[in-house]
Amino acid sequence: MSPVPEIADRPVRVLDYRPLAAAVLPANTWGYVEGGAGDEHSLGWNEQSWQEIRLWPRALVDVSTIDTSLSLLGTALAHPIALAPTAAHSLYHPGAESQTLVGAGGGDALAVMSTLGSTPVDELGRVAKGPWWFQLYVQADRDFTTDLVQRAVVAGAGAIVLTVDTPLLGARDRDRRMGGHTVDAMRPPNVAPAAHSIDPGARPHQRVYNPYLDPSLTWDTLSWLVEISPVPVLTKGVLRADDARRAVDAGAGGIVVSNHGGRNLDTAVATSTALPGVVEAVAGNLPVLVDGGIRRGTDIAKALCLGADAVLVGRPAIWALAAGGADGVTHLLDLLRSELLMAMGLLGAPTLQDLTGDLLQQ
Amino acid sequence: MSPVPEIADRPVRVLDYRPLAAAVLPANTWGYVEGGAGDEHSLGWNEQSWQEIRLWPRALVDVSTIDTSLSLLGTALAHPIALAPTAAHSLYHPGAESQTLVGAGGGDALAVMSTLGSTPVDELGRVAKGPWWFQLYVQADRDFTTDLVQRAVVAGAGAIVLTVDTPLLGARDRDRRMGGHTVDAMRPPNVAPAAHSIDPGARPHQRVYNPYLDPSLTWDTLSWLVEISPVPVLTKGVLRADDARRAVDAGAGGIVVSNHGGRNLDTAVATSTALPGVVEAVAGNLPVLVDGGIRRGTDIAKALCLGADAVLVGRPAIWALAAGGADGVTHLLDLLRSELLMAMGLLGAPTLQDLTGDLLQQ
Amino acid sequence: MSPVPEIADRPVRVLDYRPLAAAVLPANTWGYVEGGAGDEHSLGWNEQSWQEIRLWPRALVDVSTIDTSLSLLGTALAHPIALAPTAAHSLYHPGAESQTLVGAGGGDALAVMSTLGSTPVDELGRVAKGPWWFQLYVQADRDFTTDLVQRAVVAGAGAIVLTVDTPLLGARDRDRRMGGHTVDAMRPPNVAPAAHSIDPGARPHQRVYNPYLDPSLTWDTLSWLVEISPVPVLTKGVLRADDARRAVDAGAGGIVVSNHGGRNLDTAVATSTALPGVVEAVAGNLPVLVDGGIRRGTDIAKALCLGADAVLVGRPAIWALAAGGADGVTHLLDLLRSELLMAMGLLGAPTLQDLTGDLLQQ
Amino acid sequence: MSPVPEIADRPVRVLDYRPLAAAVLPANTWGYVEGGAGDEHSLGWNEQSWQEIRLWPRALVDVSTIDTSLSLLGTALAHPIALAPTAAHSLYHPGAESQTLVGAGGGDALAVMSTLGSTPVDELGRVAKGPWWFQLYVQADRDFTTDLVQRAVVAGAGAIVLTVDTPLLGARDRDRRMGGHTVDAMRPPNVAPAAHSIDPGARPHQRVYNPYLDPSLTWDTLSWLVEISPVPVLTKGVLRADDARRAVDAGAGGIVVSNHGGRNLDTAVATSTALPGVVEAVAGNLPVLVDGGIRRGTDIAKALCLGADAVLVGRPAIWALAAGGADGVTHLLDLLRSELLMAMGLLGAPTLQDLTGDLLQQ
Repeated sequence: MSPVPEIADRPVRVLDYRPLAAAVLPANTWGYVEGGAGDEHSLGWNEQSWQEIRLWPRALVDVSTIDTSLSLLGTALAHPIALAPTAAHSLYHPGAESQTLVGAGGGDALAVMSTLGSTPVDELGRVAKGPWWFQLYVQADRDFTTDLVQRAVVAGAGAIVLTVDTPLLGARDRDRRMGGHTVDAMRPPNVAPAAHSIDPGARPHQRVYNPYLDPSLTWDTLSWLVEISPVPVLTKGVLRADDARRAVDAGAGGIVVSNHGGRNLDTAVATSTALPGVVEAVAGNLPVLVDGGIRRGTDIAKALCLGADAVLVGRPAIWALAAGGADGVTHLLDLLRSELLMAMGLLGAPTLQDLTGDLLQQ
Repeated sequence: MSPVPEIADRPVRVLDYRPLAAAVLPANTWGYVEGGAGDEHSLGWNEQSWQEIRLWPRALVDVSTIDTSLSLLGTALAHPIALAPTAAHSLYHPGAESQTLVGAGGGDALAVMSTLGSTPVDELGRVAKGPWWFQLYVQADRDFTTDLVQRAVVAGAGAIVLTVDTPLLGARDRDRRMGGHTVDAMRPPNVAPAAHSIDPGARPHQRVYNPYLDPSLTWDTLSWLVEISPVPVLTKGVLRADDARRAVDAGAGGIVVSNHGGRNLDTAVATSTALPGVVEAVAGNLPVLVDGGIRRGTDIAKALCLGADAVLVGRPAIWALAAGGADGVTHLLDLLRSELLMAMGLLGAPTLQDLTGDLLQQ
Repeated sequence: MSPVPEIADRPVRVLDYRPLAAAVLPANTWGYVEGGAGDEHSLGWNEQSWQEIRLWPRALVDVSTIDTSLSLLGTALAHPIALAPTAAHSLYHPGAESQTLVGAGGGDALAVMSTLGSTPVDELGRVAKGPWWFQLYVQADRDFTTDLVQRAVVAGAGAIVLTVDTPLLGARDRDRRMGGHTVDAMRPPNVAPAAHSIDPGARPHQRVYNPYLDPSLTWDTLSWLVEISPVPVLTKGVLRADDARRAVDAGAGGIVVSNHGGRNLDTAVATSTALPGVVEAVAGNLPVLVDGGIRRGTDIAKALCLGADAVLVGRPAIWALAAGGADGVTHLLDLLRSELLMAMGLLGAPTLQDLTGDLLQQ
Repeated sequence: MSPVPEIADRPVRVLDYRPLAAAVLPANTWGYVEGGAGDEHSLGWNEQSWQEIRLWPRALVDVSTIDTSLSLLGTALAHPIALAPTAAHSLYHPGAESQTLVGAGGGDALAVMSTLGSTPVDELGRVAKGPWWFQLYVQADRDFTTDLVQRAVVAGAGAIVLTVDTPLLGARDRDRRMGGHTVDAMRPPNVAPAAHSIDPGARPHQRVYNPYLDPSLTWDTLSWLVEISPVPVLTKGVLRADDARRAVDAGAGGIVVSNHGGRNLDTAVATSTALPGVVEAVAGNLPVLVDGGIRRGTDIAKALCLGADAVLVGRPAIWALAAGGADGVTHLLDLLRSELLMAMGLLGAPTLQDLTGDLLQQ
């Protein structure tokens, strides 16, 4: 059985899913998916920076078995490719997050589900076919937040992934131009009511705060969250080494190096550029994950050579969900996994531990 | 009330005003606005150099209040975004500098008005809705110049901004090709009669001096100006650290790092490249402003991280003036100000003092 | 007699053969020839990196005789331009490898013939008009491999060129998309039966091993091969200095710096970037050859300035074979040779020994 | 009187002459003018490298008089812009070198006339309106060469400019493709009969020597020439510092840093890159000139900041000659001279001595 029967031109690489998704999604939804902040420099840098890293492969290493398995915060994973949290999957497929989770399970992948998803957190566990984590926006209503964390853990979330880079939204010009999907319009079921309202007649600089985002979070908020959470808490959106050390000090269980897919602060450094400093700062005490621009198995191999334990993919999973539902997501993951295997074989790196920094320079 | 009611496609970023202006201005006026010297390398470098600077944002900083206010040479300003001096606003809008000043006031912005403006200096103060400074070309007739300074100060100019980079005009090919706007054609009311005439039959190298510009200015001219001016005198057009020190020694009240918007000497260094050396040279003794290529809130944040106290925008204000008059100018300033607020929030920099150099590197 | 009578637009440079070949080959064959792995970055970097190296020519050197001759592993060669091993020449010309070998002889060039060629190894020697070497894939059936080496040597191969960079194939998207030429479809006469079969319904990551490639090769395999081979054994596909030292230790007779024409591991370093480290590592104890992106006489001169003893060309020879058979191959080699002579003359380097590193910098 | 009455669209910059020439010249002549060797990298690098150099102008320098005059090898010149030697001006204008020399005189410029010109050397002096030098190819017939030098000096050449970078021609693909202008076809009056003939049936690598070029020249040839020449001998085509020292040792009167306009050895270093090393090597003992890619007054200023005494322009003079004859050449020179004046004024450099290295960096 072909995993993507409804797709005429069968994708052979991640980027092949992009036009398939563009063909089925409304223009403003497509703009919301594809767009980044400002002039979308960070968006491009994320992809380009992985590509520009040169590989120095080892010859004549026995790679007759290649092992991509790892253990992450106590969870056994078949490979280091996870789904990044993204909002409102009902925009992309009627099955919404259920399809995503079935697809992730089919692809043996960890899925990180967003607070802004279209599906109540309690249902996520019921449809999940494998391990999943819950991405958290700490909301102004801390009791609501506490309850949300508890519900996620009860539903089966193996970890909480706290977003630390979004006190407010960036300059999302495509959405402003095309009428993008606001939190109001998405009516996400895991979000408390708006903390304030926006005067539509207000001047632009008077409307920079988002009613659903709490701009007052600090590292103390992380400490509090670590205290109330029964499961490890990762921080997503760290780019600086000093912040990585603060995360360690506040009790974080892991770090996700991210610039929010280039959607928040344009010209924020590419994640591949930021990764080495974070890895050095945590000095092996915590797992480090990275997202942003991962499109190839070689990108994944490079991230691991730079010290990451795993990677997350965001937009590609949306493309595959839109184009092929759960089967699309599974196929996308299988493509990436097969490319990672090929890269490891050709690099002379039969295990993830063999993906070391010397493969990136001489 | 929408601030730009006459604009069908509402701009969501500074660059959106560009095509709106191009659509309403005659071709030679548009060429005069957009053009730079020579092959327009500096023009492009100005914009690109800001964009290429990477940001390293801080996570989990409380940004529930963001304060963009500052005090500049004794004037309290709501934000560090000022209008750069540009010539002959009657070319762009029948209301000329009056509209510009009303727009600047609506946007809570300092406006620097040009000697080559279409409005007598005495009128500027009558229409200004907020603080304004007067840009000065010291003219061959020093008595005329002295009088002009006095009139500007009487009219309310809070500072004099001496242009120091224009002993003659550069190779403005677009103007030479299309019949640009010469000082003669503009008949600016604040300029003394031509100091010499040009033989139209003379060979090109015999026509390099401009009848309205005095090529003999030196640092002593600045000292003289400081002496006669009741208000602080800034020097606009400094790119070198040694010149910045000369400005301090001659009694300047501030420095504007500028390459004249790429309009004078093509391949002059981008202003973002020159800024750090000037900042280091003045060592905090004087305010430093910068213009050239500022199109985004992130550009402004970077300029301040590099040590600038404020920025000026030139062409964008002309675009907005042409497209929407005073309302356009106000809206443009509001867009930039909102982007600056977003950038500060996402950088974890709730005050201007938090915009420090470590946000640009790790 | 024109050497390429059937070609209307006579090529004046290597790249002129490219469109001629594209015009006569089926689309999927063309895709197979031209394509590289992944996004084809290494493919492009190979060509660009040679071009980007600057030459600092010597003036006023007597170049009234220019000598390109050399001796390589005991074989006297008229010039340092060899044909790289490429698969299945019957895809390009009905005369297959026979035409290639006749063309190489006409061009006074060493030819390296592939294990995956369309012609039984025993026949190669009968048609060869000059020196040739045999590229070897060590196959899972070691007895078959031993026999193949013996047959090659009996047929006249002057050396064995062991491929060390292909335990499995890379992400050849063009082939996967267009239905490229698999080893199965090529039915190469010098290859043992498949070592395993592939389940066509298997998921992508379950199909990464190729039935005709042994992924278990190590440096011990090279030692074994050196032992059983009556002729020198070179290793093709070395990019790292440490691997070059391992090759020396294992008894290799030479090294070919190669990234497999960008066809295996995309974003592998360009061969011109890897070459100097390998040259330094072998310290003159072994000849070093290089392939990948050589399109001009200046590229060849640069490779030799960087320490290579000779270069190999792959795709261009296929273009010429497809466009003009043996005459095309000869003409292509003559073009490259004439460009090398011109480069040596203009560099002030009348012998290959005069192509030294100081010609690349000052 | 307009100096270029026949040109409808009056050029305002050097590059404007390019399309005017393209419009009036046959395709193969245009290819001969515009083309460079190989893939024309050096051709492009020459132009781009000047443009990429950043200028750091000085503010508030009195530039009410700007002096571009200099003395070069005893000749007083109004400015440092000379015409580079180029072949066969009869291809571009019926008046050939006579028009060029009249144009140079009109533009107050030194003209360097080529051995391969269309005009007997004896006539050059009769039509010259100002100082001129004679470019020399030392020919195999040394007596002919000696006589040619004597005739040039008698005719008024103030110096001999020995070409040292052309023992043979480079890979001029455009000419080979389009049927370019060979020395045979040009029948230049100042060249001895061919030293050998070329077998049209010979293979490409057997045809690399040119019958009119002596590939055996050495630094001793320069010493000999210095001895027999009554006027100073410059060497044109030096890129290396060690060669510059050899030129000094052999008695050269000056050096022209040149890569032959990118026409000989493709990927030879850009002349702006080579210039500083040569300047340092000669340490002020000889004048240093430079050509290659000079298109703007700022390019000239940069060359002088890097230590050149003067610059030469080649292709632009041909464009102007083709488009407007002597008037075109004069106008072109006037444009460049006016741009140099503007650059000096805006740089705060009122004399050539003020064009110092600190204007290129900080």
